[in-house]
Amino acid sequence: MESISMMGSPKNLNETFLPNVANGIKDASKVTVGIIGSGDFAKSLTIRLIRCGYHVVVGSRNPKLAAEFFPHVVDVTHHEDAVTKTNIIFVAIHREHYTSLWDLKHLLVGKILVDVSNNTRIDQYPDSNAEYLASLFPDSLVVKGFNVVSAWSLQLGPKDASRQVYICSNNVHARHQVTELARQLGFIPVDLGALSSSREIENLPLRLFTLWKGPVVIAISLATFFFIYSFIRDVIHPYVRNEQSDFYKIPIEIVNKTLPIVAITLLSLVYLSGLIAAAYQLYYGTKYRRFPPWLDNWLQCRKQLGLLSFFFAVVHVAYSLCLPMRRSERYLFLNMAYQQVHANVENSWNEEEVWRIEMYISFGIMSLGLLSLLAVTSIPSVNSALNWREFSFIQSTLGYVALLISTFHVLIYGWKRAFEEEYYRFYTPPNFVLALVLPSIVILGKIILLLPCVSRKLRRIRRGWEKSHAIEETSGSIPHFSPERITVM
Amino acid sequence: MESISMMGSPKNLNETFLPNVANGIKDASKVTVGIIGSGDFAKSLTIRLIRCGYHVVVGSRNPKLAAEFFPHVVDVTHHEDAVTKTNIIFVAIHREHYTSLWDLKHLLVGKILVDVSNNTRIDQYPDSNAEYLASLFPDSLVVKGFNVVSAWSLQLGPKDASRQVYICSNNVHARHQVTELARQLGFIPVDLGALSSSREIENLPLRLFTLWKGPVVIAISLATFFFIYSFIRDVIHPYVRNEQSDFYKIPIEIVNKTLPIVAITLLSLVYLSGLIAAAYQLYYGTKYRRFPPWLDNWLQCRKQLGLLSFFFAVVHVAYSLCLPMRRSERYLFLNMAYQQVHANVENSWNEEEVWRIEMYISFGIMSLGLLSLLAVTSIPSVNSALNWREFSFIQSTLGYVALLISTFHVLIYGWKRAFEEEYYRFYTPPNFVLALVLPSIVILGKIILLLPCVSRKLRRIRRGWEKSHAIEETSGSIPHFSPERITVM
Amino acid sequence: MESISMMGSPKNLNETFLPNVANGIKDASKVTVGIIGSGDFAKSLTIRLIRCGYHVVVGSRNPKLAAEFFPHVVDVTHHEDAVTKTNIIFVAIHREHYTSLWDLKHLLVGKILVDVSNNTRIDQYPDSNAEYLASLFPDSLVVKGFNVVSAWSLQLGPKDASRQVYICSNNVHARHQVTELARQLGFIPVDLGALSSSREIENLPLRLFTLWKGPVVIAISLATFFFIYSFIRDVIHPYVRNEQSDFYKIPIEIVNKTLPIVAITLLSLVYLSGLIAAAYQLYYGTKYRRFPPWLDNWLQCRKQLGLLSFFFAVVHVAYSLCLPMRRSERYLFLNMAYQQVHANVENSWNEEEVWRIEMYISFGIMSLGLLSLLAVTSIPSVNSALNWREFSFIQSTLGYVALLISTFHVLIYGWKRAFEEEYYRFYTPPNFVLALVLPSIVILGKIILLLPCVSRKLRRIRRGWEKSHAIEETSGSIPHFSPERITVM
Repeated sequence: MESISMMGSPKNLNETFLPNVANGIKDASKVTVGIIGSGDFAKSLTIRLIRCGYHVVVGSRNPKLAAEFFPHVVDVTHHEDAVTKTNIIFVAIHREHYTSLWDLKHLLVGKILVDVSNNTRIDQYPDSNAEYLASLFPDSLVVKGFNVVSAWSLQLGPKDASRQVYICSNNVHARHQVTELARQLGFIPVDLGALSSSREIENLPLRLFTLWKGPVVIAISLATFFFIYSFIRDVIHPYVRNEQSDFYKIPIEIVNKTLPIVAITLLSLVYLSGLIAAAYQLYYGTKYRRFPPWLDNWLQCRKQLGLLSFFFAVVHVAYSLCLPMRRSERYLFLNMAYQQVHANVENSWNEEEVWRIEMYISFGIMSLGLLSLLAVTSIPSVNSALNWREFSFIQSTLGYVALLISTFHVLIYGWKRAFEEEYYRFYTPPNFVLALVLPSIVILGKIILLLPCVSRKLRRIRRGWEKSHAIEETSGSIPHFSPERITVM
Repeated sequence: MESISMMGSPKNLNETFLPNVANGIKDASKVTVGIIGSGDFAKSLTIRLIRCGYHVVVGSRNPKLAAEFFPHVVDVTHHEDAVTKTNIIFVAIHREHYTSLWDLKHLLVGKILVDVSNNTRIDQYPDSNAEYLASLFPDSLVVKGFNVVSAWSLQLGPKDASRQVYICSNNVHARHQVTELARQLGFIPVDLGALSSSREIENLPLRLFTLWKGPVVIAISLATFFFIYSFIRDVIHPYVRNEQSDFYKIPIEIVNKTLPIVAITLLSLVYLSGLIAAAYQLYYGTKYRRFPPWLDNWLQCRKQLGLLSFFFAVVHVAYSLCLPMRRSERYLFLNMAYQQVHANVENSWNEEEVWRIEMYISFGIMSLGLLSLLAVTSIPSVNSALNWREFSFIQSTLGYVALLISTFHVLIYGWKRAFEEEYYRFYTPPNFVLALVLPSIVILGKIILLLPCVSRKLRRIRRGWEKSHAIEETSGSIPHFSPERITVM
Repeated sequence: MESISMMGSPKNLNETFLPNVANGIKDASKVTVGIIGSGDFAKSLTIRLIRCGYHVVVGSRNPKLAAEFFPHVVDVTHHEDAVTKTNIIFVAIHREHYTSLWDLKHLLVGKILVDVSNNTRIDQYPDSNAEYLASLFPDSLVVKGFNVVSAWSLQLGPKDASRQVYICSNNVHARHQVTELARQLGFIPVDLGALSSSREIENLPLRLFTLWKGPVVIAISLATFFFIYSFIRDVIHPYVRNEQSDFYKIPIEIVNKTLPIVAITLLSLVYLSGLIAAAYQLYYGTKYRRFPPWLDNWLQCRKQLGLLSFFFAVVHVAYSLCLPMRRSERYLFLNMAYQQVHANVENSWNEEEVWRIEMYISFGIMSLGLLSLLAVTSIPSVNSALNWREFSFIQSTLGYVALLISTFHVLIYGWKRAFEEEYYRFYTPPNFVLALVLPSIVILGKIILLLPCVSRKLRRIRRGWEKSHAIEETSGSIPHFSPERITVM
């Protein structure tokens, strides 16, 4: 019986809702969509709906004035009139004016209200606009959606960044209808489930690199500090001591001493957060206790910290590779050749120096290679093609190996100069000593966590064991990804 | 009542449509799918359907001959016979033969016809094949789909590029059924809404870098021109004047003089289109007037122009980094050392030259870093993870900063040589002077647009204000992305 | 009628299934979800369900003991009791314990059983766990899903890699309900169709770079062999012959001789598989004969081989660019300058050497540029934005051009040294000769395939022609992607 009604009956709601513009079915009565509001968004939405074959009825407080701004085929009328003519109504007015629709409450029962509004600040109100609308009209079917769409993309057809439309509603059928409408208008609807997601949806267009802010501030602060530190040691110090003018070193050499320290410090910060989380779990003997907010935020920023570390590492490589191109390098070289000839030294080969630099470069390339793999797997579509085991292998195992190799890269650069007094200018340690502080702590911490006694306890905690009820589970647990992986991801 | 029928009744259309191959439900009668046509696509589709547990009935004009090509389990029969046995029929014949099905019209009422055809040229016919089929059989439910699928991927199971199947239809339930079928066959169905999308779907497999053609032609033309220009200036000129043979410069030095000019010119073209669009809107005092086609096309190619610019910039970097590796560099160097020793110059240091190159390299790396960010955010999955504000910040603000820094990069390279006569060989200006023309125009144009009086007017126009009805809107507008962003994206 | 019931009746199963937590509808009775099992996954799932507004009833063999581990709001009870209270039941126990639910068979009729289990090895059992469950309870609606989800991501909310949840079932409505539930819990459900996909779904989390293993083993073997080969020729040979200590060459020079050979050999392997597939089809005169398993596996690994080739090529570039930065380079240079001065050679220019290196570098950059394009189009989201023609143009045409140019790159590096005896140390051919073997074979093979007589026959075979029934098809074939492309993709 149902199969018949689904196929045969054109009265099916979903069916009639569709504009049968393009094919030849005779009873293709056009679907009417209502819009409350006459602003720019209402205007653009109208144009798009008409282009896709819908009838549009616009509800305005001043229909005569508003009609001038709309195409002639659009029915611009009073609110009451508009809402009676259609079952799906876009509410394109400010949140403050929602209460002005209060009088139409009886007319809106069972109708779909699409809340398209945006706020000007993140979490501007205690509840989302859509939830507020739903509380005002509990008998209407409120759907949140289309707020991430710009008036521009409505008019000229959706492109790239603005194609996705996030939709949520507590009513499954209302949600499906708006989803279908979004598809008809050429957008890619993304169903985010219940109306409780509307808060998230309303914050989406206001977000400006939320998770990036912290890591970027940290990276810039570190870069500024180490730039000044190197400037004082490598430019001011020789100028003060020997009146030697090395100011030409500022644009490249000083910058190139700053970049790698920032890169390795950021990479250490990625893994330090996981170590602290593990220590926290070991200390409290449970994984069910929430981390303090600062640690939670830090754990959430690991991807951003890692990508910034990669960015700094790549720029460091670019600067290093440019070193031999510089005119300063050429002049120093020519002067060295002159001196070698004059000193009559046939062979200036220094086996130790040769080995130091060959190993230094070699470790540098290796750690860059590993960091590249980590960066590539951060591309969303590559990431989602990996399963949990693969992702954690790359992000955790390869990540630690990359940190270890970068640490060797720095150690070999330093060689035994860390123990020579002349490198402690103005009584400050050389850059490479500072660069080693955090990585050493992280590697040491990881070694402690890998000790059998510690790792066994941690594994038990991560499987759900708790110090408080120290009863071992005996049954029912099914094999799942060992959640210990979280420390390192 | 409905909930019961949905769960309990196996007569539900969607339900019975499914092949209940794998589980043990006893009444699992296999679903029959019809195919009209006996070509290669029909054959491959049959194989795939059988593997996924469907019954297949093939309609052919010459069933006896055709049967030889199909597996034995397949029922190869006459058209009339085939269409009566099933509700879903793949039409795997040429558009020219659609009319041969005219006699079956009464048998096809209410049945799903899947149009899988492709054309050999873009927009070959005034209407799409699927729309033509729908006009011939107005009482059938025509669905467009599976045309992007190759016979190969049907047989061996879908892979990578060919997993997505685009589907559209005016009938929602027919569309959902074909969508479900595509899923059962292992494809990822992409629902493109109404049948009017069939034109786009039919053009999809014929497209060959449509948006790339213009930008690639421009890039190649620019590259050819500047290559010849540099060749004449840097190889022919010294040969003619001093009989100096510098032909070894062709593979690297001349190429590396061409690449950066093309890169910066393409980057300027990206932003020039936005400036012209803004000027157009300012001139006509409205945003509702469509841009002329050439400007529309140009605006649509900005991403491609930008990525080509990045590609040329990266290759320029690769060439530049290889400069010190060359044997020619080594010989020139050794000869300089020889001369310095013979001239007995202890120190050949030239502070100005040192600074010029250090600054030049430094600005180069910076602009490459920014361009890389722009390129990374063009990866579709990265792009769709950004909201409008983030996307426009990177593409517009960072893009203009990249253009500005690249311009400095060129200016510093030129230094004061632009004013020295010896660089005007054959009375032609040096390359870096030509490279600066477009960027300077764009930067100047942007500065004008940022002037308060101009930017205020533009902002009003982009909010929907029109010179013709100069009435300020007073209500109804809701906060949305300021659409002024479009100029720079 | 149906449209009314869909909109009006709150008894619709889908409707009531939804937790109406956030909005004000009064009859929002909370939905109850059952979980059988009391392990860590059951616990984490419970926490997530409660947070999203569901009622949870847990079935345990020892309810009193188990209750301690669950929040107080959860109803922990006996299995019988639990399954009667709900229509959707998560089976969170080991496969070995499925039979323990046998007594509840009559209670589970028509209910949805969600199999969330994982195995510890790929293809551990002849049938998948979900199919086994379905065979035990043929009257229940078995859905596979949530197995890729970690207990961790259930508790803290899904992130990145673990957001996607793969779902399959033979019952469309059961599948839709679990899909909707997954969406409500914040996951992205991916519908994989019939229950026969459950095997694939169960293998998903166990996969560890399955397709990468072969190519990585090949790459490492090749790298090891060529490293030892170069080590013997370039370090051991001069040491044995002239007691010359060139051990400093190990970290960079020897590695940098190994990398390019591995890169070009892997790239040849990508295209060799396609050539062998074509030869196989030509030999048997049909495309309907399955390839032998080793060829099938090889064809499937082409993307991985190609990306590894690109990785080795990029690392080779990194090493090459670092060559001028080395201290060894500087010392050799200074000594050369010394000798030039002492030998009183004013100009050491060697035109042939200059040209060799300029051309060598130039071809190297070109092939890297092409390989980069191939690598970028392997990013899943870039890939899926291309159609078949575009993808095959890049992967096949550009790929072959890249192979050709890399071969020239190697040839020019070798120059005429391949014919000089001194390069045959220990009677072994120089590296570049070995590097040319496979590429030459592939290019030769491709040329043969492009011969008109061969290519015509191949094209016919790929269009479905068979040697056995040599009857030309006359009709019914519709234009589709010429499947000859497969040889090269």
